[in-house]
Amino acid sequence: MNSLLVKNIIVDGKLSSIYCEDGHIAEIGVEKDADEVFDGQGCIAHPPFLNSHTHASMTLFRGNGDDLPLMEWLQTRVWPYEKQISFDEIYWGGKLAMVEMIRSGITFFADMYWNFHAVAKGVEEMGMRACLSAVFIDFDNAEVARQQKEANERLLHESKEYSNCISFAVGPHAIYTVNQDSFRWAAEFTREHDLILHTHLSETGHEVKECLEKHGCTPVEYLESLGCISNRFMAAHTVHLTEKDIRILGENRVMCMHNPVSNMKLAVGGVYPYRKLKAAGAIPSIATDGAGSNNNLDILEEMKIAALLQKHHDNDPTSLSAKEAVEMATIHPAGFFNLDCGTIHKGGLADFILINSGHAEMNPMFDLNSHLVYAANSQVVDSVVCDGKLLMRHRTIEGEEEIIAKANEASASMYKRIDG
Amino acid sequence: MNSLLVKNIIVDGKLSSIYCEDGHIAEIGVEKDADEVFDGQGCIAHPPFLNSHTHASMTLFRGNGDDLPLMEWLQTRVWPYEKQISFDEIYWGGKLAMVEMIRSGITFFADMYWNFHAVAKGVEEMGMRACLSAVFIDFDNAEVARQQKEANERLLHESKEYSNCISFAVGPHAIYTVNQDSFRWAAEFTREHDLILHTHLSETGHEVKECLEKHGCTPVEYLESLGCISNRFMAAHTVHLTEKDIRILGENRVMCMHNPVSNMKLAVGGVYPYRKLKAAGAIPSIATDGAGSNNNLDILEEMKIAALLQKHHDNDPTSLSAKEAVEMATIHPAGFFNLDCGTIHKGGLADFILINSGHAEMNPMFDLNSHLVYAANSQVVDSVVCDGKLLMRHRTIEGEEEIIAKANEASASMYKRIDG
Repeated sequence: MNSLLVKNIIVDGKLSSIYCEDGHIAEIGVEKDADEVFDGQGCIAHPPFLNSHTHASMTLFRGNGDDLPLMEWLQTRVWPYEKQISFDEIYWGGKLAMVEMIRSGITFFADMYWNFHAVAKGVEEMGMRACLSAVFIDFDNAEVARQQKEANERLLHESKEYSNCISFAVGPHAIYTVNQDSFRWAAEFTREHDLILHTHLSETGHEVKECLEKHGCTPVEYLESLGCISNRFMAAHTVHLTEKDIRILGENRVMCMHNPVSNMKLAVGGVYPYRKLKAAGAIPSIATDGAGSNNNLDILEEMKIAALLQKHHDNDPTSLSAKEAVEMATIHPAGFFNLDCGTIHKGGLADFILINSGHAEMNPMFDLNSHLVYAANSQVVDSVVCDGKLLMRHRTIEGEEEIIAKANEASASMYKRIDG
Repeated sequence: MNSLLVKNIIVDGKLSSIYCEDGHIAEIGVEKDADEVFDGQGCIAHPPFLNSHTHASMTLFRGNGDDLPLMEWLQTRVWPYEKQISFDEIYWGGKLAMVEMIRSGITFFADMYWNFHAVAKGVEEMGMRACLSAVFIDFDNAEVARQQKEANERLLHESKEYSNCISFAVGPHAIYTVNQDSFRWAAEFTREHDLILHTHLSETGHEVKECLEKHGCTPVEYLESLGCISNRFMAAHTVHLTEKDIRILGENRVMCMHNPVSNMKLAVGGVYPYRKLKAAGAIPSIATDGAGSNNNLDILEEMKIAALLQKHHDNDPTSLSAKEAVEMATIHPAGFFNLDCGTIHKGGLADFILINSGHAEMNPMFDLNSHLVYAANSQVVDSVVCDGKLLMRHRTIEGEEEIIAKANEASASMYKRIDG
């Protein structure tokens, strides 16, 4: 039995404590003897943030190729390197991302990248939770598709070696990189094994136009016709949608991950239709995307920019309030992933963060949601607890310096090996 | 003679040092004996950021009244309080803002607020530089206008009591709060005394529409007809502009301050036309506006959002590059205010900041501009030097805790006194 007592913290507006046992919150406001007692120094306890769409290991590419269109960026700065990226490079890039995410109060992320085990190993070592998909790209090549299906079948089996903090998902990259038979297979495979299906969807106008030309329907309709769309389906971006698309996503309770920084930086030419998706019944979430197109993994910054972009686009300052932005990074994705960490309560997962309200920009305080979204940056996240363990203590993460150094080495060696 | 040696820092890519004497950079790379020797711990020396439009003391209002339209916010959440705000409240609100700005690497700000002396006192104590205007609002009342003119004449005289780190500007709030005779007076007064004229301009479509109805011309044309527009004129927002407006602002080398967060948060219904203003010859800058509509004073965040908003609006990922965003917060406003701190060089002002590239999100590094704009938050600003003095040493500002406590008291007492 592992136990942790976090005392001297504000819970629901009162000075209190949280006692964790075996990964769950066993008591609130009752101080019991514990294996570790941690002084929260008056910080505010808050549900953790969940980053519902990222490519963690892409920290290796951070800042190499700004100011380029999506397809040019992918074709010249990303794919040629990813083709030859090694296990170690993915592992260290992922760990760097995890350091950044923990520093921003994120305890869980949904990843799509090239080596499931390399990222899973990092997740276990860092003590986070993750839903990991090995990205599936076949470029319409039947033999590659066959290999990818086999790999996913094998990985599902192998994923059971890890703790229950890690779940396996199937991650076909997008309709323009994955064959329709492969999508059909992914739909069946995920249904059979009750898995999540994670993809990019309707990110650019070009994707929609091409789909209309090739298949005579929108990307959402196309994936629906292939059986992919269900309440286990999560779609990143969902920017260019028709009213019918929105209805399909809403009726199926799809999680639609909004990545405003990536969308603006790559100029995808549209805005995630937050109000409509929410009204239709879809699960709206906020995510950072990978550091390659952001260029960080700061969920607080992402919440602010999400709120600003909706207000700007709707020409309405009441759009996407601070409270809604926080929900899109906490309780909404928590519900989708069936993680009981959307609020802090007895019996829930022992996943929470401590917010230091002493920083200048957090004062005076009228409303915590407002400050988390509009005023704070990630330095206000003082400490992070996940699965009853402290991942960050007063801004210190064990091994952080080594991880940064190793990730720098991994990035340099990747470019050197591939560029010559 | 005051001297400061900052050693063990990276200047122009090399390990070096900066020796400051009497407020200027006397040597780069030559270590001389100094009153204070400071170890830069390997940080990167960078020109300081200038915040070219703010209302510093509005930190007191931070987060009280989010998600409201501009006029409703001003009329219900701002003006009723500002009518009765005290010297002490302005002073402590201003100091809180200065703490925040220094933590974000800002050494200079252009302010518009209600009590020149309250802010000026704070600036001198904190060791910053500022161009301060006492906001001028007459709501078309001749007697109020007379008082405001007298006050400005007196303040110009009194401003000479302060060090040369502080300059006085005239700050008529906007065309919808200030009479045309007052603007005419401001134009003459600033020309006569070679002062800067600082106003809000063409922020909302409503402002433009009302001006067209009332005066038969755009706000820019209106102020040009009153003699206000020159190369000593600085205009905040400049969102809703015609081609002719842009030509007028460009030909007169007006500084146009872009406040993307405030514009998006208040949903002003347009986007600062960066490329056109720059091409026309205007001086483009980036500023935070007040914390009331932001809700922080973080220039790094503002640069990122400025770059993202232009890319999004132009549907072009090459719009407003990282380098241009940095220039809008450094060398462009430095030139306008005639401050020799836009680059670090021998003989220039001893104003610079140290960037800590050790943070996770700064690694790996391909380009510092890219990381400052897209990856960093203000925690990467390790130390700040202004006028040859250290305002922040390794994230520590003298007196910070007291300032935060006093600003909280000031905000609470203001609301209590006025709301009853």
